[in-house]
Amino acid sequence: MSVDGFAANGIVTLLTDFGLADGYAGSMKGVLLKSNPDLIPVDISHTIAPFGIASASYVLHTYCQDFPEGTVHLTVVDPGVGSARRAIAVLCRGHFFVAPDNGLLSMALGADRVYRAWEITQVKPPRDSVSATFHGRDIFAPAAAHLASGGDPADLGLEAGDITLLEEAAPDITPGRITGQVIHVDHFGNLITNIRGDLLQDRDPGTILVKTGNYTIVGMSRTYADRESGQLAAYVGSSGLVEIAIMQGNAAHTVRAPLGRTVEIAFREKRERA
Amino acid sequence: MSVDGFAANGIVTLLTDFGLADGYAGSMKGVLLKSNPDLIPVDISHTIAPFGIASASYVLHTYCQDFPEGTVHLTVVDPGVGSARRAIAVLCRGHFFVAPDNGLLSMALGADRVYRAWEITQVKPPRDSVSATFHGRDIFAPAAAHLASGGDPADLGLEAGDITLLEEAAPDITPGRITGQVIHVDHFGNLITNIRGDLLQDRDPGTILVKTGNYTIVGMSRTYADRESGQLAAYVGSSGLVEIAIMQGNAAHTVRAPLGRTVEIAFREKRERA
Amino acid sequence: MSVDGFAANGIVTLLTDFGLADGYAGSMKGVLLKSNPDLIPVDISHTIAPFGIASASYVLHTYCQDFPEGTVHLTVVDPGVGSARRAIAVLCRGHFFVAPDNGLLSMALGADRVYRAWEITQVKPPRDSVSATFHGRDIFAPAAAHLASGGDPADLGLEAGDITLLEEAAPDITPGRITGQVIHVDHFGNLITNIRGDLLQDRDPGTILVKTGNYTIVGMSRTYADRESGQLAAYVGSSGLVEIAIMQGNAAHTVRAPLGRTVEIAFREKRERA
Repeated sequence: MSVDGFAANGIVTLLTDFGLADGYAGSMKGVLLKSNPDLIPVDISHTIAPFGIASASYVLHTYCQDFPEGTVHLTVVDPGVGSARRAIAVLCRGHFFVAPDNGLLSMALGADRVYRAWEITQVKPPRDSVSATFHGRDIFAPAAAHLASGGDPADLGLEAGDITLLEEAAPDITPGRITGQVIHVDHFGNLITNIRGDLLQDRDPGTILVKTGNYTIVGMSRTYADRESGQLAAYVGSSGLVEIAIMQGNAAHTVRAPLGRTVEIAFREKRERA
Repeated sequence: MSVDGFAANGIVTLLTDFGLADGYAGSMKGVLLKSNPDLIPVDISHTIAPFGIASASYVLHTYCQDFPEGTVHLTVVDPGVGSARRAIAVLCRGHFFVAPDNGLLSMALGADRVYRAWEITQVKPPRDSVSATFHGRDIFAPAAAHLASGGDPADLGLEAGDITLLEEAAPDITPGRITGQVIHVDHFGNLITNIRGDLLQDRDPGTILVKTGNYTIVGMSRTYADRESGQLAAYVGSSGLVEIAIMQGNAAHTVRAPLGRTVEIAFREKRERA
Repeated sequence: MSVDGFAANGIVTLLTDFGLADGYAGSMKGVLLKSNPDLIPVDISHTIAPFGIASASYVLHTYCQDFPEGTVHLTVVDPGVGSARRAIAVLCRGHFFVAPDNGLLSMALGADRVYRAWEITQVKPPRDSVSATFHGRDIFAPAAAHLASGGDPADLGLEAGDITLLEEAAPDITPGRITGQVIHVDHFGNLITNIRGDLLQDRDPGTILVKTGNYTIVGMSRTYADRESGQLAAYVGSSGLVEIAIMQGNAAHTVRAPLGRTVEIAFREKRERA
């Protein structure tokens, strides 16, 4: 391999909004295996909300680093298929990401965002021609197969310079208050915020107040089991962000906090009886 | 291998209506891997509408040719399990299809429908006996494992002659009009018709009118991005058929066009201001 | 391998309630492949009802024995994550099961329940530390990877003695009557009971009455096709238990039999015209 920091291991993860009831994801896996039968396609999710770029960006960053270096992540949530948006291949921290250039990779690039990107302009489509509506099959999957087989990214096109990044709705931080928002609601109804847990690490957990809508949660928990069944709890979740959950319940149903809902963190001087 | 045109590559795709919340698809993958741990099961979809043979037939044809020759497609949508319908293995264009003989393979066989078929009567069930209700596990998966491992189809049973094909609701074509119907609604709410795009290839796209229910779409688009957000568009989709979509929306919700809804294509003498 | 009766084959099945729209199952597959790229993750289901231990126990027992000996079954339905419940690895009939110790394995252990269990206390988490809320990624997947790679279970921790088993709601059997209940409703709306079919094997099928709610089904069928479309049928299903279905319909919608609904079996002296 000619690219520093990437030795292909043959694994290709798939993240799309293509759903589960059509053949779209299947076609992509076929293209990978037809190109190289030794590749290892791994489904992550095909039920990202249609056109949900921000949600896909969050989900991608939760799992990508659990795979070994040398993995290719094929991520297609692409409301702009057929428009002028670029197709890109991005190398970051020993992983390749193949995606439309629409911000989908924003969170996966990590805090320092050191990456190299190529624009994909040269792939050979698996059928006679590139369709106008299914670039997952005709452009992204062939590019992923090329990289996962150890191919040179320069074969795909020229280096792409800066890629599109989502405006990060970074939390607003003042001495006594952090104001963030809900960026993802997971399968269990847990509300994931954009507030990093390490912002709270010097605080006594009992002095932290988490507010959203009419609800105030007193104190940070370590895990769901620290509260009684049916109670709201705030804690630092498995991806390092502050989350709100209901023990054995569904916080999204109770709090009715849609994506984007404000979450405020405030502090008490000292721990009191709640 | 004794059969012309098939050299098994070990890949077995799975398409069923078994859903995702039970162990049914898992049992089939277990049977494949217990028979031969080198096989490569590839999930396509298990959420075909229950008993939806026509929809499964459409979905199968969209992806099967994206897989390499030598693949076995294990497709079980089987409302007649336990009835007299045959179990068949069909070789077509270098792929094997293992399925109930109920029309499921109609679209996958291509326009010329050149195939050889065997009736499956001889498989060894994975448990003590063949259940009356789960032939996917007890008959189809063992047959697929046999073929994907390079086994002779003649070991499965006698040649089967003609197989069941769905009455094709082929579009009605007159000099000024093509009348077809919606054969599939995909995850995005796009309406896929049975009208092949190549019927329109000699026409100026601006002169084509696509009508369904109370809606008339003027002109064919090349891709979703040719229309503004929220507008209906007609275009030739990634499987070569005329489709109707709404840019960044859900056409099925707007048009309320269920499966089978009539879609008419007419022509204007020349392009006018729409 | 130092453990009698287990020679790892590299296959790891995954059964969870993590859903399909997040990266949780993907993270677990990443951890497996990062630990050992030769492992073969096989998705079974990630849509077990949230916290549905009994349902997961039923589903697990339907497919686990279809996989070859030497398989590891990674099963995480874990309402008690973060509580004192143990994490366990259980060897039974040539398969390893990695799970929270909450009863999930009850049905998979078979009728005689001969097993050896280890408490998992020693795994190296894939990230810097074990999260409080995602033991699937941080404890169960690393333990499964260790066992599927041929590792010694004693490396995971000490032998665990007896594990938690669900109170079996075994059917009540009297000379003229068997009283059981619905333990699972499958994707097709079929109602699966806890009444073993072999309890009925000496009876004339025509003399058997199956009652639930206001419905009485006269006679046991061999398969769905023995009844006309829309009719209720009772039969011994593919997992060996008595089931109730509607031919080409959804019994759960018609009978409105939730989980736990009583199902009674009675007998007539001789077959009569129904």
